[in-house]
Amino acid sequence: MRMKLISTVLGAAISASMSGTIAQSQSQIVHDAEFVRLEKHFAEQWSADDNLVREKLAALEEKFGKKPNIVYIMADDVGYTELGSYGGGKVRGAPTANLDRLADEGMRFLSFYSEVECSPSRGAVMTGRHPIRNGLFNITLPGQVGFGLAGEEVTIAELLSEAGYYNGFFGKWHMGEEEEHYPTNQGFDEAEWSEGNPPWWVNNKDAKAADDIGGFTNRTLMNHPGPEGFPYETGGVMHAKKGEEPTMVHPYTMEKYNTYDSDVADRVIEFIERRADSDQPFFVNFWGKGNHFWGAHPDFRDTPAGTNTASQMVEHDYNTGRILKTLTDLGIAENTLVIWNSDNGPMYTAHPHGGYSLLPGGKGETKEGGVRVPAIAWWPGMIEPGQEPMDLVQITDWFTTMASIAGVMDQIPGDRIIDGVDQSALLLLGEGKSKRDYVFHYNRENLEAVRKDQIKLNLKPTNPAFKFFEAYNIYHDPAERFPNELENGFWAGPGMSRIIQEHMAMIQKYPHRQVVGKYREFDTNFDPEATPVYAPKLTVDW
Amino acid sequence: MRMKLISTVLGAAISASMSGTIAQSQSQIVHDAEFVRLEKHFAEQWSADDNLVREKLAALEEKFGKKPNIVYIMADDVGYTELGSYGGGKVRGAPTANLDRLADEGMRFLSFYSEVECSPSRGAVMTGRHPIRNGLFNITLPGQVGFGLAGEEVTIAELLSEAGYYNGFFGKWHMGEEEEHYPTNQGFDEAEWSEGNPPWWVNNKDAKAADDIGGFTNRTLMNHPGPEGFPYETGGVMHAKKGEEPTMVHPYTMEKYNTYDSDVADRVIEFIERRADSDQPFFVNFWGKGNHFWGAHPDFRDTPAGTNTASQMVEHDYNTGRILKTLTDLGIAENTLVIWNSDNGPMYTAHPHGGYSLLPGGKGETKEGGVRVPAIAWWPGMIEPGQEPMDLVQITDWFTTMASIAGVMDQIPGDRIIDGVDQSALLLLGEGKSKRDYVFHYNRENLEAVRKDQIKLNLKPTNPAFKFFEAYNIYHDPAERFPNELENGFWAGPGMSRIIQEHMAMIQKYPHRQVVGKYREFDTNFDPEATPVYAPKLTVDW
Repeated sequence: MRMKLISTVLGAAISASMSGTIAQSQSQIVHDAEFVRLEKHFAEQWSADDNLVREKLAALEEKFGKKPNIVYIMADDVGYTELGSYGGGKVRGAPTANLDRLADEGMRFLSFYSEVECSPSRGAVMTGRHPIRNGLFNITLPGQVGFGLAGEEVTIAELLSEAGYYNGFFGKWHMGEEEEHYPTNQGFDEAEWSEGNPPWWVNNKDAKAADDIGGFTNRTLMNHPGPEGFPYETGGVMHAKKGEEPTMVHPYTMEKYNTYDSDVADRVIEFIERRADSDQPFFVNFWGKGNHFWGAHPDFRDTPAGTNTASQMVEHDYNTGRILKTLTDLGIAENTLVIWNSDNGPMYTAHPHGGYSLLPGGKGETKEGGVRVPAIAWWPGMIEPGQEPMDLVQITDWFTTMASIAGVMDQIPGDRIIDGVDQSALLLLGEGKSKRDYVFHYNRENLEAVRKDQIKLNLKPTNPAFKFFEAYNIYHDPAERFPNELENGFWAGPGMSRIIQEHMAMIQKYPHRQVVGKYREFDTNFDPEATPVYAPKLTVDW
Repeated sequence: MRMKLISTVLGAAISASMSGTIAQSQSQIVHDAEFVRLEKHFAEQWSADDNLVREKLAALEEKFGKKPNIVYIMADDVGYTELGSYGGGKVRGAPTANLDRLADEGMRFLSFYSEVECSPSRGAVMTGRHPIRNGLFNITLPGQVGFGLAGEEVTIAELLSEAGYYNGFFGKWHMGEEEEHYPTNQGFDEAEWSEGNPPWWVNNKDAKAADDIGGFTNRTLMNHPGPEGFPYETGGVMHAKKGEEPTMVHPYTMEKYNTYDSDVADRVIEFIERRADSDQPFFVNFWGKGNHFWGAHPDFRDTPAGTNTASQMVEHDYNTGRILKTLTDLGIAENTLVIWNSDNGPMYTAHPHGGYSLLPGGKGETKEGGVRVPAIAWWPGMIEPGQEPMDLVQITDWFTTMASIAGVMDQIPGDRIIDGVDQSALLLLGEGKSKRDYVFHYNRENLEAVRKDQIKLNLKPTNPAFKFFEAYNIYHDPAERFPNELENGFWAGPGMSRIIQEHMAMIQKYPHRQVVGKYREFDTNFDPEATPVYAPKLTVDW
């Protein structure tokens, strides 16, 4: 919801209506204390909104005879300002015509926040819980075991199964590579997935330094696959149906990786075509590339920027367009919610091939560049075109919103904290209907920043002149250059402290899941970069 | 024009066709050496383009019986990312619906460059010459004499007079306050103008510390007008017709300043209504506010951002809409070219009231944030809607482009270097038709950066690790964070050196105009901030 920070928080109305103690949400869902405060204050308004939402969904179900399909598209490392509609596209040498049309015809989120990096964001959308709570607060890496999306977590796919959905997953999973983690053991009826991106595809015993990584050179450690002869077998793209043992579709190779976004889109399109006429609604995931340094499809290497990033972006935009065309051609677009977002900000280690954001900060950081990312929702007839809400939305919200749209909010477990809030009213009723005006920004184990309305408190100050705290007004200063404008500072201290204390108190009651990884055994005698002793070819006796 | 940098510059084709010496342009206009190279190479293409442009303009003149009107709107300190269509607007708490519609229905320039600050940019558009050449390479300040737009300069208003235009100027002039500098002595038939913005309106003997500056507090030196009792008379808004002695419309006061953008827009609308049916085409200038710290119109103080900047932006957007409505209502839009651009980047001294840009750097700097600014051209029926060219355009180009559209290129004097190039082909034929792929970025006396296609060479390196030079690829890295990607560095040294050497050699032949200001005499005994000797009210005898 949109509230004027100062007037609301200092005003008597809310203070009086909120007890100041941690209260249980009115539903069975355990939400964070800050949500419970808002829910109490806006009870009447939210109830009216929710009734309108239920009416719209019921009318649609009446019309189509089943619940709406959901297409969820996750792009990799795409910064806030990368799409044309966000000021990028051509400016970055990579036009994004299809995603721009998606935004024009749907809802473009101006204040959407992911987690700081890849696996954490993916786990957050699957569970509706911040990574620190579900245990997946780190990136999975090749060779790791014991670390991934815990079986005890309840995923959105499992919830949608309860609602009668048929669920498909295609693309980069990156939430663990053991049996417990398989998408087909986490609620998906069928899946074809890769555990990760470049590290899996090239830290592979078949990799060659001469493998084609997209045709663009790069500096530092990113400019070739390797090391050759690496003894660890990273596997390949897997395929399975629920209850089946997965089989390998093909081992990881850079040749395949170059075209992987398009290959995954082909699988998604085939799935949609096959499931469109079913009595069951479908939930299909296209978790593609975007800006993830290595690899460029041979058909998309002629961008003005001449980078892998630009090639991937143009290819991913094209593939998103192909999926939308499939929905339109099949006549099911009006009964299909399409969600597109990036998983986190750019990865500058691979510059110029790892994406970009005009907002400072990147992947792995809670600065705006790391977590404020582009996001779009599209649903012809249900979501009004051309909307650009400034409402805060966090990636965990998709979990709860999808559950709400499918009518299975009552299946969400009540024994754990759910961070995602139901944003179906924002989608269907428009700007100002978000059920959050706060975001907790975690970076791995640590709470690094808290957003409340326009104000962001940075708990890890970097400016030596402002050690006590750094608060930014994100409307005045989206790039976080001017900490502690006077009018913010007055409130940011005690106001934020209250929010954080209540947040921490709830963790005592609902402890985090502990997921601890370790590394597999492999031939540790292998030395990939042993430098031979140098003996000059020409010597002179003297 | 769009050229792939590496292939073009290292390729044999161009090298062979260009002599490497400074050549005279084929027209009488003296252009810089780099333009002459391009003109030779693209002679055939440009000639064909120019013929198409002439045909379109001739057909329009046939239809309307006169040359097209020109509305030129200059906004103050609006950063590249401030308009909704550039990723700002609501994101900055200041929606810009009218300017966004202007962009949708016209041409939005993605690579438009101004000069680094106010008076220099204004002089550049008036003369088609970089400030260093016309002498106005500094900001005029209250109390200065002898400094401004030299009478010997030939302005676009003077050229358009030759073409039969009736010229009006309304708003912030900021190019000198003496007789020589008056707009009505620089080609305008009528004018109502203010010499500058806040410094004139508040460093005024009638200013009071309690004057309403917009209702928003601010830190540091910006938070009140002052000093009270200042003995220097900064004057007021002037009005004149050509050949008349100007009269003061009203003295500068903050009360007037708060509504100045709207007052100026009223004058522009009255002018357009009065001149619409004339046999003469008109050239009218609306040089308004935008993001210039002090002052906020009482009707526009309710923005989400709650800053003067946001109020001014919303007000200026509204006033631009009013002017466009006037053109449409009068049925003259199809015979009227509308140009809108900012004069330079934001002024962070006044944060949060001085504008913003996600691009680092501001007013007074040649970093992208200082000089890459929003710009839009609109001309229903002549400029195709929805265009977003990446073509380089520099603010001096408006001079030459307006002269071209009015058919008076042959009146441009041949005794001085003209930096502006004719961009009428870009406007009327579309993306890729810019006649420049280079920009010289001057900061007051110094050449600080040179752009060639995607590469920008910073001649004032700031990173201690890259003392020799800093080159950026502006497509890869619009925020200039990663100097000297390997592929750029190879060319940036010798390639840029050639361009700069030829540029400098031309200055020997066509020296810069020298304009030297000095300060007026006034009561220097006045001490505005004399701190009284402090005597505590409570004392104790002991």
